[in-house]
Amino acid sequence: MATLNKEHIDILKNIVGSNYVLLDDESLHYYASDQTEKLHYFPEVVVKPRTTAEIAAIMQLCNTHLIPVTPRGAGTGVSGGALPHLGGVLLSTERMNSIIEIDENNLQVITEPGVITEVLMNAVKEKNLYYPPDPSSKGSCFIGGNIAENSGGPRAVKYGVVKDYVLNLEVVLPTGEIIWTSANVLKNATGYNLTQLIVGSEGTLGIVTKIVLRLIPLPKHDLLMLVPFKNLEQASEAVSIIFKAGFVPSALEFVEIDALKIVSKMLENHTVPVTDDIAAHLIIEIDGNDVDVMMKEMEAIAELMTQYDIGEIFFADDNYQKEALWKLRRRAAEAVKLEGYTIEEDTVVPRALLPQLIKGVKALGEKYHFKAVCYGHAGDGNIHVRINHPTIKNSHGNEEMTNILRELFKLVKSLGGTVSAEHGIGLIQKPYMDIVFDSTNLRLMRSIKKIFDPNNILNAGKIFDVV
Amino acid sequence: MATLNKEHIDILKNIVGSNYVLLDDESLHYYASDQTEKLHYFPEVVVKPRTTAEIAAIMQLCNTHLIPVTPRGAGTGVSGGALPHLGGVLLSTERMNSIIEIDENNLQVITEPGVITEVLMNAVKEKNLYYPPDPSSKGSCFIGGNIAENSGGPRAVKYGVVKDYVLNLEVVLPTGEIIWTSANVLKNATGYNLTQLIVGSEGTLGIVTKIVLRLIPLPKHDLLMLVPFKNLEQASEAVSIIFKAGFVPSALEFVEIDALKIVSKMLENHTVPVTDDIAAHLIIEIDGNDVDVMMKEMEAIAELMTQYDIGEIFFADDNYQKEALWKLRRRAAEAVKLEGYTIEEDTVVPRALLPQLIKGVKALGEKYHFKAVCYGHAGDGNIHVRINHPTIKNSHGNEEMTNILRELFKLVKSLGGTVSAEHGIGLIQKPYMDIVFDSTNLRLMRSIKKIFDPNNILNAGKIFDVV
Repeated sequence: MATLNKEHIDILKNIVGSNYVLLDDESLHYYASDQTEKLHYFPEVVVKPRTTAEIAAIMQLCNTHLIPVTPRGAGTGVSGGALPHLGGVLLSTERMNSIIEIDENNLQVITEPGVITEVLMNAVKEKNLYYPPDPSSKGSCFIGGNIAENSGGPRAVKYGVVKDYVLNLEVVLPTGEIIWTSANVLKNATGYNLTQLIVGSEGTLGIVTKIVLRLIPLPKHDLLMLVPFKNLEQASEAVSIIFKAGFVPSALEFVEIDALKIVSKMLENHTVPVTDDIAAHLIIEIDGNDVDVMMKEMEAIAELMTQYDIGEIFFADDNYQKEALWKLRRRAAEAVKLEGYTIEEDTVVPRALLPQLIKGVKALGEKYHFKAVCYGHAGDGNIHVRINHPTIKNSHGNEEMTNILRELFKLVKSLGGTVSAEHGIGLIQKPYMDIVFDSTNLRLMRSIKKIFDPNNILNAGKIFDVV
Repeated sequence: MATLNKEHIDILKNIVGSNYVLLDDESLHYYASDQTEKLHYFPEVVVKPRTTAEIAAIMQLCNTHLIPVTPRGAGTGVSGGALPHLGGVLLSTERMNSIIEIDENNLQVITEPGVITEVLMNAVKEKNLYYPPDPSSKGSCFIGGNIAENSGGPRAVKYGVVKDYVLNLEVVLPTGEIIWTSANVLKNATGYNLTQLIVGSEGTLGIVTKIVLRLIPLPKHDLLMLVPFKNLEQASEAVSIIFKAGFVPSALEFVEIDALKIVSKMLENHTVPVTDDIAAHLIIEIDGNDVDVMMKEMEAIAELMTQYDIGEIFFADDNYQKEALWKLRRRAAEAVKLEGYTIEEDTVVPRALLPQLIKGVKALGEKYHFKAVCYGHAGDGNIHVRINHPTIKNSHGNEEMTNILRELFKLVKSLGGTVSAEHGIGLIQKPYMDIVFDSTNLRLMRSIKKIFDPNNILNAGKIFDVV
């Protein structure tokens, strides 16, 4: 790998304009971090292209001169995918922020990658259309980053994750070549699925420059309730009971009481009861077009919950209450991180095995003397485990914490789960890949990387080590 | 590529037992064809393994001795994916026909590849669970073949295609190595999506030996109606109007009157009116759990249709009528083929552009003097074009027909569509790949093939030419 010289910088300025090639300390410092633990890696230069052609030119330059490139969306990732740990060029897509077309006849949207997910969701909502995948960071993350990580969020339980909405992608390869992966159609059996290979590849195979998403009609109504459980195991057990009874909520979230206490301290105006006899809450949302049918369904789910030792169920009456409740859930990650829970793991198991997973997390905490809180998308079996260790604040590069987490992921694997549901591997989850994949899988993945990026310049050392 | 000698045959008999190594003329003749046009290619030997380990041993043998292997499910494919055009070993998965486990707690099923799709659907239905992707051949095709082709079917319009249900696959690679592609979880952001690379790869990257599918709760009710249109263009135009109005039918099929006439001759007991003033029918199904709501929805859709020049709408009153109507649709392919419509194309475009596609098909027929009928999954923009040419019965290897079809697919491409929605490329659609993919895409795909199959022994010459 090479470092940048003055000539390279001049070429970059020629490509994107000198206003968009940043070398000042403040910029380098800002782009040195994303939301991952407490990690900082300084790039040599920050480049902000506006067009596909500019990105192609940047990649050609860097590919020729073996300059590392780290693509970055909004920097909200938590596995270190956007950290420029090898220096080189930090390529930000923040200026590629146009929604190109909302096609109301075909229920599709074509967008650039630098659009904030919630902005995109709201734009299509105005046309009575719905793009469901809504990661907790939807108010700040970019749709391009969501593609890179194959993001999920609360609505995945009913509507699926990002990969289920991507029809076609324009991608600049590390060599500077530009491809479209598919066609703007709902079904495609034409060759290998390059679209799905790019989705979730964490910016290691190419830089996504245009995105075609399918949309669905916007459901007219939603109902929301909060079920307080006195017993942690029962809360996690109740999750699979709901689906087994034939219900598919549009969200089914789990929040352990310690997380709720922390976030409710941060947010003052909320109406959720946080009492000491409660161990965890389930947040259950259903959506649809017929309120009467939905009310009946919600009552049936509530009735189903009474077999457990629960407190009083709280029904959100209006949009204000719903918003308040969702804010408590969505801002949990931020709040617990500020309280010292800096290490976050993105565990996922078949949902009926959540009780075993959560019990295992608690046992690990006792064994190794750290505090852990769990919250997340229980309907998908996807629980975020946040760790507050008295001395270790980063798992990355820390042998002791890495060994503890290997123990966690061996449990996850034994339950049929895997290392990441929606956060990706990035820089910091690499030490756990061998727990869930054997050497053949890893060889195939590395070989695929090599096809797309023969010189290993694009987000190198993410997902796998540099070899 | 090598041919088999006596020693190879003896080893194959050792691996699977001599009863399952077939060399007789009748067997070789049977496995020389699938449902593709009127093509025949004789294998040198037919092998019927029972286990993953047996398949691994077969692949090791063939990889060492460079013997071509063609995997085959039920042989219902229409793009020639299962045709042993290079001789060698025809590997049938028909004995791998066990449903291993229906997991009612996690709404998943684990199955072997040789299970008939409808058998699998019925088995999970008994547990009130639903596996939606139901290709027209569901009564005879294998679930393994559905994975290979990324099959769709009528319900894809609401529920998605096969790829949307596959969680994890056990795959024997051409080298004989065995991998699991993922984990049995609903969300996965752990490395590249090898699962989605295998789905739709048409048996060119590996042989799928175990399949983990997610299931959903079975909808309690469905309603079905048939809307006769006097004008072909209006029928295709009406399709996108339904979705634009916010409805998502569980099926939205289009059948041109000529196809219906042919299939209704074959099936005697049906109640569908086939009159000369009708140009095409839409078959519209909605499903759900609340009949009252569904009735209202169906009436609203029917009302929406009255803006067009339509005949009397036929509502299927009971299961018998529904079955009869579905049989007419499902057996269209078989019936028109028997009537001389031997060439089938699997076109797909954004659904609002169906009128242009169908007009283009008719214009091509006039220009080149052949009859064409159209039917298919209009809700997905996916229309099967069947061609009855006075002299040309196979497109494969026929320059004149290939040029005609290139014209068809250039139109499809200009409308934003692609060469195949659900039938795959296989042997016969290769001449059209360059219309929808540029050389970079094709290079990436060929390179991926090489990673999985360095000696090019597994279903070589499918999707791409042998190089």
